[in-house]
Amino acid sequence: MAKEKKFVEAITSRDEDFAQWYTDVVKKAKLIDYTSVKGCMVYRPNGYAIWEEIQKDLDARFKATGVQNVYLPVLIPESLLQKEKDHVEGFAPEVAWVTHGGGAKLEERMCIRPTSETLFCEHWAKVVQSYRDLPMVYNQWCSVLRWEKTTRPFLRSKEFLWQEGHTMHATHEEAEARTLQMHKVYEDFIREDLAIPCIVGRKTESEKFAGAEATYTIEALMHDGKALQSATSHFFGDGFAKAFGVQFVDKNNELQYGFETSWGLSTRIIGAIIMVHSDDSGLVLPPRIAPTKVRVIPIAQQKPGVIEGARELLAKIREAGFTADIDETDKMPGWKFSEQEMVGIPLRVEIGPKDLEKGQAVIVRRDTREKYFVALNEITVKIGEILEQMQKDMYNRAEEFLNSHIDTAVTMEEMITKFDTNPGFIKAMWCGDENCEDEIKAQTMGATTRCIPEKQEHLSDVCVCCGKPAKHMVYFGKAY
Amino acid sequence: MAKEKKFVEAITSRDEDFAQWYTDVVKKAKLIDYTSVKGCMVYRPNGYAIWEEIQKDLDARFKATGVQNVYLPVLIPESLLQKEKDHVEGFAPEVAWVTHGGGAKLEERMCIRPTSETLFCEHWAKVVQSYRDLPMVYNQWCSVLRWEKTTRPFLRSKEFLWQEGHTMHATHEEAEARTLQMHKVYEDFIREDLAIPCIVGRKTESEKFAGAEATYTIEALMHDGKALQSATSHFFGDGFAKAFGVQFVDKNNELQYGFETSWGLSTRIIGAIIMVHSDDSGLVLPPRIAPTKVRVIPIAQQKPGVIEGARELLAKIREAGFTADIDETDKMPGWKFSEQEMVGIPLRVEIGPKDLEKGQAVIVRRDTREKYFVALNEITVKIGEILEQMQKDMYNRAEEFLNSHIDTAVTMEEMITKFDTNPGFIKAMWCGDENCEDEIKAQTMGATTRCIPEKQEHLSDVCVCCGKPAKHMVYFGKAY
Repeated sequence: MAKEKKFVEAITSRDEDFAQWYTDVVKKAKLIDYTSVKGCMVYRPNGYAIWEEIQKDLDARFKATGVQNVYLPVLIPESLLQKEKDHVEGFAPEVAWVTHGGGAKLEERMCIRPTSETLFCEHWAKVVQSYRDLPMVYNQWCSVLRWEKTTRPFLRSKEFLWQEGHTMHATHEEAEARTLQMHKVYEDFIREDLAIPCIVGRKTESEKFAGAEATYTIEALMHDGKALQSATSHFFGDGFAKAFGVQFVDKNNELQYGFETSWGLSTRIIGAIIMVHSDDSGLVLPPRIAPTKVRVIPIAQQKPGVIEGARELLAKIREAGFTADIDETDKMPGWKFSEQEMVGIPLRVEIGPKDLEKGQAVIVRRDTREKYFVALNEITVKIGEILEQMQKDMYNRAEEFLNSHIDTAVTMEEMITKFDTNPGFIKAMWCGDENCEDEIKAQTMGATTRCIPEKQEHLSDVCVCCGKPAKHMVYFGKAY
Repeated sequence: MAKEKKFVEAITSRDEDFAQWYTDVVKKAKLIDYTSVKGCMVYRPNGYAIWEEIQKDLDARFKATGVQNVYLPVLIPESLLQKEKDHVEGFAPEVAWVTHGGGAKLEERMCIRPTSETLFCEHWAKVVQSYRDLPMVYNQWCSVLRWEKTTRPFLRSKEFLWQEGHTMHATHEEAEARTLQMHKVYEDFIREDLAIPCIVGRKTESEKFAGAEATYTIEALMHDGKALQSATSHFFGDGFAKAFGVQFVDKNNELQYGFETSWGLSTRIIGAIIMVHSDDSGLVLPPRIAPTKVRVIPIAQQKPGVIEGARELLAKIREAGFTADIDETDKMPGWKFSEQEMVGIPLRVEIGPKDLEKGQAVIVRRDTREKYFVALNEITVKIGEILEQMQKDMYNRAEEFLNSHIDTAVTMEEMITKFDTNPGFIKAMWCGDENCEDEIKAQTMGATTRCIPEKQEHLSDVCVCCGKPAKHMVYFGKAY
């Protein structure tokens, strides 16, 4: 038992030191390792497998809406990056520059893509001729690089993995509809597959993407009351098309500019999964995106027939379509339980000599540690039921937490007090002036506008900050 | 018909100008587009979809052998690249260097990975402690960059997509066995899924990977008689482990160095698929990796009931599990056929008013243009059968071509003549001296040793070049 304790004690308590708890979980669950390039990480098998599950589910949702996958170069020439003024201002300060290749200095330096709007537009300017060629509904799974100074696993790193969708349309309306469609795809994915409730809406001018006309965001609430921007969808109007000369001949034989969108979700979302669901025993994964659903753990495995019975059970579980493994090492059962809990496998199935006698096994849920004694001939049905229930319960618990951390404020005093006593989202009225956003950020020690929700409430007539007439109800929060 | 002709005429004849034919197919099938960065390409939807199929099939084969996917950084610090002498000599001349990031000059420049042995070893040096941690059997799907001067779509580009597997083992034997296991995985994949026959064997000293003890290769024969190295597997011994300090405590509590392997297959293989199977009408794809298996083409679609009948048929085909689409555009049927042939969809199903009356449709095979008149209630079974037959026939035709382009030579005169008259692989005896490889290359205008096959034949006692005692029978070929 001493060893087991040591294993679990390696995790700092979540309530004691949230940041250290997070780092401990990431490390002990073997998700990430550091490298000699500060801010660039190794995604270890346990971490990358979660990303693979996310890719699989999200990619299927994309393709169901007609998205086609492509791959564009990792390098962007400086002159290309500079074609759209707002965009280059937003990204130029944080890119990495390639200056030499093949032993020689380059005529023009190139950056490693921080995002690929420019490359997509360059391509479209060449291949789009007629309205018949539109829409172009593209996506790529790749890594991008932004020279961040302070980095944290998944949440902020120089290089990270993501998908970036880019589309070009014949009309303003169609492009806007696509932006909102992808915004909804993200929301459904995050709620249904990741069991993470969220608030959704439009970004204010100061928070929107460099070069966009409008940015839509999904904001989730972490267990420490901080917000995490989880996926964004941008509508560009025809700004980029004009900057890059993406023109097409319309049905009336007239030359028009196209309308563009882009939308992305990154490995950041794995940070959200950890910070919404996990606990002091380690990772808790929603069953739908858990790479391994079940681990079989034989008890008293040296006794005759136990290993064989456990292996039979494993085969049966796999046959029923659940990813599963078995821990046959010579460690003590308690140690094995701790490891299974640490890496976030949703269910463990314990089977020992007495269980075999009775023709049963014990299923234990990762999130609640609830135990189920189940007859072996019913076990695969039961596993399916418990996984489904667990997915629902995890969403409901997270939603309860979210709801109890959304509050309102009509004065600055109220807002400041509420951010101190019950950090989360605070709804407040806002005049639309960027100065008030700055002022609120300063007075609350960091709260920013997270989004303007579509469903507006009338909390007061005036801005929470300056007292001038209010334009919008906004969600404020302190963000990662 | 004028338009149709123009569409097909855009492809140069394969026998007239192979290189131009290749470029035409790549372009007209919309696989690749060029960018403003010379040698970096856009993988368009039709091209990337083939890569996705390759990924799906090969990844499943990897995982069946216990491979785990990971992701390591895109950047390698110069000092890390330099740790293994042979490796840096092989790669340093062709890397791209990042010298600035976040607006400042870096203390140490970093290259964009040309391959990742160094990064994997750095990671293992940190996480491997005991024999219990081994083996590490990792793979990553990513892009790499090598500063090539002359580039061609798929075959040679600055940036390309690939998978790179890297493993670390406790013993020499286990690492060697893993190298050969992956070599066999590639061979099976290339034969079974890509319908490409090949010769396999070990590389000579001069042709092996920078830093490897042994390199195993899969060599395929293109339609112009040139060879294409299609996948390689490397055994490193403990050289890298020693250079990077990858050590573990063995069962006897003694400190040992690990043994390493790596193995890779890239988007180059798409070039092989094109150059082995395609024809003057465009792309021909082996059914197993064709992203879309069937295209339904309504004939006389303005007639009542035709579009509806075609859509019903499409739904039925999809329900049976075949990826399928439909061409409902207002183009002439002949034009639609040309397009379907150009992009390499294995089967088209034509359905018009007369077919509907008879309760049938016409299936046309892409490779042979063979026609099958099939009753609608048997069509999905028939589609499955034809696809399977097509896969087999494509392999058999390619194998026949390969076999008729393998010859032997016991003198240099014979070798030179044979490379001139019937280019392909030539088997010959070799003394093992690098000078003879150079001499043969010079005299034949470019033939190199492709591999030393495991199954040796005794063609003569002496080296085809110098007349000294022969050590191996070697396959020679002119390679892409």
